[in-house]
Amino acid sequence: MPTIKDVARLAGVSPSTASRAMHDNKMISEATKERVRKAMEELDYSPNYSAQNLVKRESNTIGIILPVRENQDSLGNNPFFMQIIQGITSVCTEKDYMVSLASGRSDEELIKNIQTLIRSGNIRKFIFLYSKKDDPAFSFVQKEQVPCVVVGQAYGPANQETMFVDNDNFQAGQDVTQFLLDRHYQNLLFLYTDLDEMVEMERIKGYLDRMQSLGLKALSFQLSRVDEAKTMAELQSFLQQNPQIEAMICCDDVIAVRTQRILEWLQYKPSDFAMISFNNTMVTELAKPSLTSVEIFPFQLGEKAASLLLERNLKGLDKPYFLPHEIIERGSTPYL
Amino acid sequence: MPTIKDVARLAGVSPSTASRAMHDNKMISEATKERVRKAMEELDYSPNYSAQNLVKRESNTIGIILPVRENQDSLGNNPFFMQIIQGITSVCTEKDYMVSLASGRSDEELIKNIQTLIRSGNIRKFIFLYSKKDDPAFSFVQKEQVPCVVVGQAYGPANQETMFVDNDNFQAGQDVTQFLLDRHYQNLLFLYTDLDEMVEMERIKGYLDRMQSLGLKALSFQLSRVDEAKTMAELQSFLQQNPQIEAMICCDDVIAVRTQRILEWLQYKPSDFAMISFNNTMVTELAKPSLTSVEIFPFQLGEKAASLLLERNLKGLDKPYFLPHEIIERGSTPYL
Repeated sequence: MPTIKDVARLAGVSPSTASRAMHDNKMISEATKERVRKAMEELDYSPNYSAQNLVKRESNTIGIILPVRENQDSLGNNPFFMQIIQGITSVCTEKDYMVSLASGRSDEELIKNIQTLIRSGNIRKFIFLYSKKDDPAFSFVQKEQVPCVVVGQAYGPANQETMFVDNDNFQAGQDVTQFLLDRHYQNLLFLYTDLDEMVEMERIKGYLDRMQSLGLKALSFQLSRVDEAKTMAELQSFLQQNPQIEAMICCDDVIAVRTQRILEWLQYKPSDFAMISFNNTMVTELAKPSLTSVEIFPFQLGEKAASLLLERNLKGLDKPYFLPHEIIERGSTPYL
Repeated sequence: MPTIKDVARLAGVSPSTASRAMHDNKMISEATKERVRKAMEELDYSPNYSAQNLVKRESNTIGIILPVRENQDSLGNNPFFMQIIQGITSVCTEKDYMVSLASGRSDEELIKNIQTLIRSGNIRKFIFLYSKKDDPAFSFVQKEQVPCVVVGQAYGPANQETMFVDNDNFQAGQDVTQFLLDRHYQNLLFLYTDLDEMVEMERIKGYLDRMQSLGLKALSFQLSRVDEAKTMAELQSFLQQNPQIEAMICCDDVIAVRTQRILEWLQYKPSDFAMISFNNTMVTELAKPSLTSVEIFPFQLGEKAASLLLERNLKGLDKPYFLPHEIIERGSTPYL
């Protein structure tokens, strides 16, 4: 493995000059820096980060914090984590940063892992891939006063080192409502499972806001997460009481496909209701009819989170950084 | 942050004794080791890995190598990576290892990232989350002579530091065939997309082997990955020429759901063919009827890969380490 001495020799400078050049010291001329850079490339030299860490007390590594997994499947079923991670690593590659993961089966284990990254790995920069109420891991990172970016929305106050990156789910809720209205549907139903989830809450609020501002009647229905028979009976009676419903907004693609199945069991035809949903996952193409859905660009969320963290301009931004979304039109929303 | 001197003071020993105790030196009594361990716990002391790395030239970190992503979606659509990663981190947490990621948009970028992990991060242990023919990243790691475990099957010879962990897809192909035969289906069709994929090749070989050994006629059909209209026309004519077909084996769940859709367009009833598939992803529940499928336990694959890598007993194992699979029965395979 080449050393800094090899680089210095090839560049024709002293090792200390080579080191200053590598650290972009203002005392060193651009021409010398260029010679040192070329020598580094030619020798395929990487600075020894471990040695640097002892001095800098900070590694060139970002720590990604995954949510606690309650069971082996709970994470694999979220189709976004991998894409967000890819977006993060894409930016880190460009900036010569490495990426480490922290995960755990419990809050305690997750915190222990974050602690290991901070104390043993000298990692001082973190990205939370999730956001939840009263999260002990988040509180721990807040107390450590290290810069962090949360992919998701804020549940409460955060310190000045923290920043949030997310889609504007309220706006997206308004947009899908307007999309259906533009296609001449007026009697809309919003389907959701859990309003404790910030994402669902924001989306339904956007829907309610849009309907209210136009003086239209807003309807919503909660699907049970577990009991399919109960859900089917309740939805049947709900639709009988509200025969005017023409279109449905589903809080995510899986809810939409579940609803399609229930409607089929209830002997409704696919053409009886238009349907739009959120997340634009692979199931949109497997649905019948294929689902119009809101693309939320998880790869770009990851990219933006990493860029903000590495730019170190976190301070003073107390609002979430919103990334755009886009409605992808498919067969489930023809003009009425 | 506490130092080794603080630990030594609390334990009532010299710093060098504390250090020897931490490294489990035989010169140090169990009683002293226990005192040092307690002092470490009380002070919440972690050894400074960076400092250790300079001596050991090896970090307590495993590098996970992701496949090159051709586009932003290509990885997010594989439902297994996240679960395999979770299995890996689960084992690493127990053994106080950290986990870093290497990924890239091209072979060159991926290799550059692996190089950074090796040279700057002192990482000497890797897990490939994929396996493909003539892979430059794999060749690079082979040349570096670092221990690695591949989740997948071997495409060619590998050095003594390398080991493979996988499901026995040949056996799984035999098992799904027998499962259908046990339910009294005899005229089976195997559907696949790409036999260059080792996984698909092994699965169909298992099917062909089982059919041949029983003297039954084996049929197979290749679905185009892209052209749905062409696939539909070809499958229609294939089924007209082979009206005896009673059941279908699909090489994965997505192929199965695609096939269900095509069959519906072709005016077949869901009860016309039994269907079984592989991977047991979330789409099995969204299919109509819900799909019987082979669970491949990706979390356990990750756990096993990490255990083997950390046990350092890689040498001498020239066969892949096979993990069990399990057929999960759902509505698509009633008794005939």
